[in-house]
Amino acid sequence: MSKSIFYHAGCPVCVSAEQDIVNLIGAKNVEVVHIGEDRSRIAEAEKAGVKSVPALVTANGHTLHINFGASMEDVKG
Amino acid sequence: MSKSIFYHAGCPVCVSAEQDIVNLIGAKNVEVVHIGEDRSRIAEAEKAGVKSVPALVTANGHTLHINFGASMEDVKG
Repeated sequence: MSKSIFYHAGCPVCVSAEQDIVNLIGAKNVEVVHIGEDRSRIAEAEKAGVKSVPALVTANGHTLHINFGASMEDVKG
Repeated sequence: MSKSIFYHAGCPVCVSAEQDIVNLIGAKNVEVVHIGEDRSRIAEAEKAGVKSVPALVTANGHTLHINFGASMEDVKG
C-alpha cells in the first residue's frame, strides 16, 4: 500500500492541517506536496479529485478535503 | 493524551470519511460520535468549533472539517 498524499499550498490553514495530519497518521505514512511550489503535481491532484487545499488523498484513492485554505483555481492563479 | 473524536451524522459522506479516518489513524485512537443520534453531544461538538459534519477534533483540540456532509444547523434540525 502506498502512502497517503497531503496536498497543500503553504497557506496558514494548510500548515495547521499538515501538522495535525502528520501528528495523527505519522510523517512516514504521508507524502507532503506543496502544489504552489511544485506545480507539476497540480494535474495529479486534480485527477485525484482535489478541489481545494489542504486535502489528503488516501492510499486507496479517497480524497478528504480538510477545512478550506484555497481552491485549486486560486492555486493555479 | 486523549483520543481524537470523530463527529458525524450518519450521512453517506460521513460514513465514507469515518472509514477513511479509522483506516488512517486506527480505531483505538478515535472515538466515533453520531450527533444525530446522541444529541447530548451536539453542544460539546459546537464548543470544539465543529461547524459541519463529518469533523475530527484532535486530542489537542484542533477541529478538522473533512469534506462536507451536513451543517450543524441541519443536524440540529
